Amino acid sequence: MTKGRMEAFSDGVIAILITIMVLELGVPHGTDLSALVPLAPVLVSYVLSFANLAIYWNNHHHLLQAAHRVDGRILWANLHLLFWLSLIPFGTAWMGENEFAPIPTAAYGVICVMAAVAYGILVRALIAREGPNSVIATAIGTDIKGRISPVLYILAIPVALALPWLAFGIYVFVALIWFVPDRRIERRLGPEAGHDHAAEANAPREP
Amino acid sequence: MTKGRMEAFSDGVIAILITIMVLELGVPHGTDLSALVPLAPVLVSYVLSFANLAIYWNNHHHLLQAAHRVDGRILWANLHLLFWLSLIPFGTAWMGENEFAPIPTAAYGVICVMAAVAYGILVRALIAREGPNSVIATAIGTDIKGRISPVLYILAIPVALALPWLAFGIYVFVALIWFVPDRRIERRLGPEAGHDHAAEANAPREP
Amino acid sequence: MTKGRMEAFSDGVIAILITIMVLELGVPHGTDLSALVPLAPVLVSYVLSFANLAIYWNNHHHLLQAAHRVDGRILWANLHLLFWLSLIPFGTAWMGENEFAPIPTAAYGVICVMAAVAYGILVRALIAREGPNSVIATAIGTDIKGRISPVLYILAIPVALALPWLAFGIYVFVALIWFVPDRRIERRLGPEAGHDHAAEANAPREP
Amino acid sequence: MTKGRMEAFSDGVIAILITIMVLELGVPHGTDLSALVPLAPVLVSYVLSFANLAIYWNNHHHLLQAAHRVDGRILWANLHLLFWLSLIPFGTAWMGENEFAPIPTAAYGVICVMAAVAYGILVRALIAREGPNSVIATAIGTDIKGRISPVLYILAIPVALALPWLAFGIYVFVALIWFVPDRRIERRLGPEAGHDHAAEANAPREP
Repeated sequence: MTKGRMEAFSDGVIAILITIMVLELGVPHGTDLSALVPLAPVLVSYVLSFANLAIYWNNHHHLLQAAHRVDGRILWANLHLLFWLSLIPFGTAWMGENEFAPIPTAAYGVICVMAAVAYGILVRALIAREGPNSVIATAIGTDIKGRISPVLYILAIPVALALPWLAFGIYVFVALIWFVPDRRIERRLGPEAGHDHAAEANAPREP
Repeated sequence: MTKGRMEAFSDGVIAILITIMVLELGVPHGTDLSALVPLAPVLVSYVLSFANLAIYWNNHHHLLQAAHRVDGRILWANLHLLFWLSLIPFGTAWMGENEFAPIPTAAYGVICVMAAVAYGILVRALIAREGPNSVIATAIGTDIKGRISPVLYILAIPVALALPWLAFGIYVFVALIWFVPDRRIERRLGPEAGHDHAAEANAPREP
Repeated sequence: MTKGRMEAFSDGVIAILITIMVLELGVPHGTDLSALVPLAPVLVSYVLSFANLAIYWNNHHHLLQAAHRVDGRILWANLHLLFWLSLIPFGTAWMGENEFAPIPTAAYGVICVMAAVAYGILVRALIAREGPNSVIATAIGTDIKGRISPVLYILAIPVALALPWLAFGIYVFVALIWFVPDRRIERRLGPEAGHDHAAEANAPREP
Repeated sequence: MTKGRMEAFSDGVIAILITIMVLELGVPHGTDLSALVPLAPVLVSYVLSFANLAIYWNNHHHLLQAAHRVDGRILWANLHLLFWLSLIPFGTAWMGENEFAPIPTAAYGVICVMAAVAYGILVRALIAREGPNSVIATAIGTDIKGRISPVLYILAIPVALALPWLAFGIYVFVALIWFVPDRRIERRLGPEAGHDHAAEANAPREP
């Protein structure tokens, strides 16, 4: 019950974040195709952030499925994650409207690092609650993607100051590793058992 | 459980999309009826998009009701659909604020095609999961409306460049075929058994 | 199940409508109390619309509680109601920002009439589904408030053109009759049995 | 059932409030770090309001968990609370955009007092429903935090007119007492039993 309401609240916040970003797109000034050109970087950063928030929702979904009960510490760890996610539309708009200028692109990376750290804290709060032999704890064991992601984000921040487009490429790469390999695992495991298995295995990694 | 949270998230996103569009209406400049005149095309395109999003919600609702479980592929197919739906407020505002100019009206058609294609991908992902003899697969069999809709949208895109109001008429027509005939079927089947039957039959068609 | 998702979607839309209105308040220009003075009519109309949307949510809540299943017709009647409710923030902003000018105040009344009519259609769709001896149908029998409300709104529209503040007073009066008398009934029926009884009796009236 | 829908609606409203505030941050004018400087007070007040709304959601969550049924009076008490919470983004923006000027900072305190009072009314409505020996009523008995909070807010209002930063410090202090001590209790009670126990004990205090 408690868990259900925390899930519902998180779903609500992420659903709002993922849709209010589209308000930043604004209405193009003019009625020809060239009016869309200045929107291109905003649209590109929107697609990235939509994917990132979708990945968080997806992982959050799997993670909570493996949890049984929540306590005050988990509630606050979750709210802390939602706080950093709530800054993604801000980072997206600043980066997109300035055509991937160095500082805004680095700022986007900072928000991504903080969100990844907050996700890690949530995972640890859940493991503390569920115990060292729980589904979450064992699944976390080989969490390669969850360890690589924040490292790549931290690398991307100084890169953004010199080569913002390369930093953006790193952000895209991190997003890609979060769904491309899962597909491959699912296919290998077969259509019936595979899907859930992959979902379970995928559960508690941090982006 | 999993399915329930995917439904809740989709409901949240569609509910937000359907209501943030009204923000685009803006407050009329002036206090007489003539102040509403420049708003007329915005309001007209709002009504169309409200109907389109309502149709998607309605169909999504019926479609998921026939599904039993969801997997990673379905979650991503669903998020992909939500992405294209999230561009509808943008397309609505560009089309409405420019009084159905050719390019914006064609752009609206592009978004509608992409959303219809994304819906088709979601249906196929669900059939792959449920199996060829499932309720969804058999109901999809005679999916006339679902096949006509994207064809009409694709036709409307070049039409929009020459005769945008005709293209708009096609968009309205596609929306109309999604609820007018259902009413007729329901009435024919009678008030008791009819409603659910029609809902079931109506379920997995793509708009 | 079906009913649950329709309720969730309606809750989402009404929750968004009730909160995006506050965005219209805007940030006052200045930092002294006099900066709040131009906001006063916006705030007053916000309070009215918050109350109106809250009343609709409350009645919708009770109404659906008495329903057992929903069909396509009910889904569309519900979406039709949500459409008119979605115009309330627009009407609120136009009326409030123009300090209750005649046409905007009349336009607010038009939206209120349409929402009340849409609510009546939803009630009739539910009665058609539930049957003439259902809880909803019998409770509707003596629906005095539901009949008076649209009449008062229709009266208020021409009044608004001459005496907009009187029309506003009528809107406030309609809102008041929707919760003041219920309190009285609840108190008379006693604290234990009374509350549910009153809620049940209050259920299917249209605002 | 009834209770579930009231929870869902409250979650929706609070989720929206907590995320639309981030829209007030706006996109910085410029692409260097100095462009973030004028945003600092807005960001600081955003963090405070995010924490305040999170605390309300958290307490609301625990409070409703201890409740069994809701009636009309509770529904309206809840809507009344949501009304005052809906003014928090407004107060946050006015205070933040004016760098904690006296009147806006005092206005923020007024909204906080009203929300705390509304929460108290909701608690009393729930106790009236649940009875004097219910979990809620007994837990409320030693409600030290719930009594101190509104007193501190009322004190902060005149302080804000002379020393707005001190008033802001009081707002931060009130937020801190709502989660710092709970952690301590949880730790003392141990990891297993402690969490739920603390959550239960923490439940019905008003912020």
